[in-house]
Amino acid sequence: MAPGRQVDLNSDMGESFGPYRLGETASLMALVTSANVACGFHAGDPRTMAATVELARRHGVGVGAHVGYPDLVGFGRRAMTVGDEEIATDVLYQIGALLGFTGAAGVPLRHVKAHGALYIQAERDRRVAEALVEGVRRCRQPVTLVAPAGSEMERAAVACRMPVAREAFCDRAYRPDGTLVPRSEPGSVLHDPERVARRAVRLAADGEVEAADGQVIPVPCDTLCIHGDTAGATQLATAVRAALEAAGIGCGAMDSPALAPPPPAPG
Amino acid sequence: MAPGRQVDLNSDMGESFGPYRLGETASLMALVTSANVACGFHAGDPRTMAATVELARRHGVGVGAHVGYPDLVGFGRRAMTVGDEEIATDVLYQIGALLGFTGAAGVPLRHVKAHGALYIQAERDRRVAEALVEGVRRCRQPVTLVAPAGSEMERAAVACRMPVAREAFCDRAYRPDGTLVPRSEPGSVLHDPERVARRAVRLAADGEVEAADGQVIPVPCDTLCIHGDTAGATQLATAVRAALEAAGIGCGAMDSPALAPPPPAPG
Amino acid sequence: MAPGRQVDLNSDMGESFGPYRLGETASLMALVTSANVACGFHAGDPRTMAATVELARRHGVGVGAHVGYPDLVGFGRRAMTVGDEEIATDVLYQIGALLGFTGAAGVPLRHVKAHGALYIQAERDRRVAEALVEGVRRCRQPVTLVAPAGSEMERAAVACRMPVAREAFCDRAYRPDGTLVPRSEPGSVLHDPERVARRAVRLAADGEVEAADGQVIPVPCDTLCIHGDTAGATQLATAVRAALEAAGIGCGAMDSPALAPPPPAPG
Amino acid sequence: MAPGRQVDLNSDMGESFGPYRLGETASLMALVTSANVACGFHAGDPRTMAATVELARRHGVGVGAHVGYPDLVGFGRRAMTVGDEEIATDVLYQIGALLGFTGAAGVPLRHVKAHGALYIQAERDRRVAEALVEGVRRCRQPVTLVAPAGSEMERAAVACRMPVAREAFCDRAYRPDGTLVPRSEPGSVLHDPERVARRAVRLAADGEVEAADGQVIPVPCDTLCIHGDTAGATQLATAVRAALEAAGIGCGAMDSPALAPPPPAPG
Repeated sequence: MAPGRQVDLNSDMGESFGPYRLGETASLMALVTSANVACGFHAGDPRTMAATVELARRHGVGVGAHVGYPDLVGFGRRAMTVGDEEIATDVLYQIGALLGFTGAAGVPLRHVKAHGALYIQAERDRRVAEALVEGVRRCRQPVTLVAPAGSEMERAAVACRMPVAREAFCDRAYRPDGTLVPRSEPGSVLHDPERVARRAVRLAADGEVEAADGQVIPVPCDTLCIHGDTAGATQLATAVRAALEAAGIGCGAMDSPALAPPPPAPG
Repeated sequence: MAPGRQVDLNSDMGESFGPYRLGETASLMALVTSANVACGFHAGDPRTMAATVELARRHGVGVGAHVGYPDLVGFGRRAMTVGDEEIATDVLYQIGALLGFTGAAGVPLRHVKAHGALYIQAERDRRVAEALVEGVRRCRQPVTLVAPAGSEMERAAVACRMPVAREAFCDRAYRPDGTLVPRSEPGSVLHDPERVARRAVRLAADGEVEAADGQVIPVPCDTLCIHGDTAGATQLATAVRAALEAAGIGCGAMDSPALAPPPPAPG
Repeated sequence: MAPGRQVDLNSDMGESFGPYRLGETASLMALVTSANVACGFHAGDPRTMAATVELARRHGVGVGAHVGYPDLVGFGRRAMTVGDEEIATDVLYQIGALLGFTGAAGVPLRHVKAHGALYIQAERDRRVAEALVEGVRRCRQPVTLVAPAGSEMERAAVACRMPVAREAFCDRAYRPDGTLVPRSEPGSVLHDPERVARRAVRLAADGEVEAADGQVIPVPCDTLCIHGDTAGATQLATAVRAALEAAGIGCGAMDSPALAPPPPAPG
Repeated sequence: MAPGRQVDLNSDMGESFGPYRLGETASLMALVTSANVACGFHAGDPRTMAATVELARRHGVGVGAHVGYPDLVGFGRRAMTVGDEEIATDVLYQIGALLGFTGAAGVPLRHVKAHGALYIQAERDRRVAEALVEGVRRCRQPVTLVAPAGSEMERAAVACRMPVAREAFCDRAYRPDGTLVPRSEPGSVLHDPERVARRAVRLAADGEVEAADGQVIPVPCDTLCIHGDTAGATQLATAVRAALEAAGIGCGAMDSPALAPPPPAPG
């Protein structure tokens, strides 16, 4: 491992809505380095956005737009067949809305991450990936796109020279081909903080993980996702953060100067 | 009348939604100088916003955010009792969303105008007016607020040195006290293009209008509202524009250099 | 107190939405006799409605429609100026939607209760009260309207011979004139289970309560509201239920035969 | 052709929303025999539903629920991956809401038809078809399901003895396999009233149509869809109705006694 290695820890934040509370935003904000802020389409509302951005500012956490499908009742987790221009303009609308709040708080918008079904579709579907990236590109801000290494999203971003932070998941089981074991399968989500923390260190230090079949596979990783809506999220994040520090790996927002440069275009 | 007098013509634009079309945006855009773009709360959607901003850009028309209550089915025309922070953050969210599209089109956001019930409440209710202005202020853009002379909105904007364009209505009947005759009363809306055009010239040139009782009253006017959702809107706008030109009054977006400075704080 | 006195205990239920959970529906259902089911306008969604009606059926709890303004983000708590026909048709739509689920579960729809701002406005504003009752009347079901004694709602229901269950609040402070101390004032909500239970017994047995100034005032009461969204709701409901039973007061759904007849039309 | 042959003419109605008008509901109501009323998920609102049901009642037109995905901005035309219970409860909610209005008008609910993406998915996808039929079944009303002959929807309805009205399209081109030419292909929609009327007569009288390649194929038809949102809808409907009458084919709502019995279960 290179000296001075650093990794970003990102978490979904601001998923409350009106009278409803969701997630452990307040306690997680002290542990992560990037906050993916819901923008009102799949979760979040203007008050929640304002409070979440302000909380991130106070903790020096990087703020990003967590953009999703317009499906509040389904929490943006239902796949939709949405046209290119619909995706691009929905993404731009959500980024813009968040820019209102980052502007008010005097902090930059640092990254964009797709949520739920949009993330999953943009991972594999070139058309969706390109529409997503087109929406991000139009906002004309120097933002980083969060995307798994090797995904269509990464490819589309690289193609228009948009910085990418390659995302890995320390609490999810991987298949040998580098994709995640679906949540519907047993053992897909890891709950033991010790084990999750060890995987986090290996991903951050060496860019590799042990797949479900025991094979060690490469998973390039600039940012680790810390799930915020699962029970015990804060405990898990605390263990990950401690293990990284013990291993001499710093934590910093994904677009900080110490971050590795975005990956070259594949092929 | 001073030589070189100029007035802005503003109109509500981009009020379509999904499959639904509303207003004469395309034909009016060639006639007005400022477009109030609906931002998705009372009307409008991301595709409509993108198309409307692009159309405005091509015509050199100034783009502003038309912000309203979150009431799509009621078109933002139903009074609501909304908290200060709710108003400010709803306004900021809508302005931000539009900033995504103005940024993409490479045009500045020039103004903000409240819509429907929010406009009416902010005219008279100091708390609502201050919350609206607070939302506009937070976006940290050099925008002009559209507000009737003498309104609480104007007062709140002036109090924090926000430029104001004083709005007058050439197709509405005025009471002697300078307020509008409510739409529910007969004769409240004028339909004769000739008459409307004459009133437009008098408002723009001399800042006065004949009230319903025949009295001539002062109505300071930096921008004239051209209603876009009424039948014959384009015909009316054509007549107004022609009459202004015949009277030697130029038309220009409200924040252009030739525009009169914002009014001093009252009293 | 008459022998065989019986009171209804009603509670707001099914206020979850999509991924969001709200209230203690599961534990309260074993304690109350009437469930006010949110219908999707201010809270609730089709899955939550189906599950709540099914839970009520299993516990033999009477099902009613909890109808509100279309304001999910504001939880129906923001006053709105809505037209008569808008109120009537919004109410009818919500009742109808719930009738789908009661029909599927094979249970009758027993009552209707207004929620939040609609309840408060219909208490005092004759026009709103009449529009609400008109919406209920149109559903052509033999339902009981829940309304405070002496309210415009009660008056409007009685005027068209709609049964009314007069509602009282055992955990809220009353003013000497029989209205509630607003939530914004200190001491407006009572939290001590013992004290709340004593008030419940006195309301149910004698139709009276001690007001904030110590005066004992008459508050006719066919149904007691058990708040479901406050912390400790289940504990409070348990104490109330136990105290009523200790006092020999039965609990039964509001339209059961033992219930007192609806009040005569005032004056 | 059998003497006394009768066909139903159905059209989508009540697709307006809030301030937005869509379709030619008023003029088409005099020409069709069944109205598919939008229920607020993909289009429609409580006022529009009330007015549409009342208009249908006055014209003696059969009222049915037009149920769709919760996607107002996409008009229910975007495919979604929605769970079985989500589909069933969304369908039940919409049917229930409409039952409020049919009950108020004193007319029965006669049929249910899926809209847009839900119709297309339920045509081919057994899971979606069964979830749709499950939602309809739960409403416990003696309704007829509108579905193309041979579709998964028809199969699922027949499996639980739900009456089916087999739907054909007189203004759409068919492929030799009996499916529609997609709207995205040239020539998919027919606009010539004469030609559309001739196809309507052949479908109603003989249950067959000329496919795009000139072959004559069987298309069993109990109800003909008259599109209401296309320009010239009224003219087209007038031509169809006149041609049917000239051919001695009566028009009547789909569940009237003269209608052919529902098809036997396939296989």
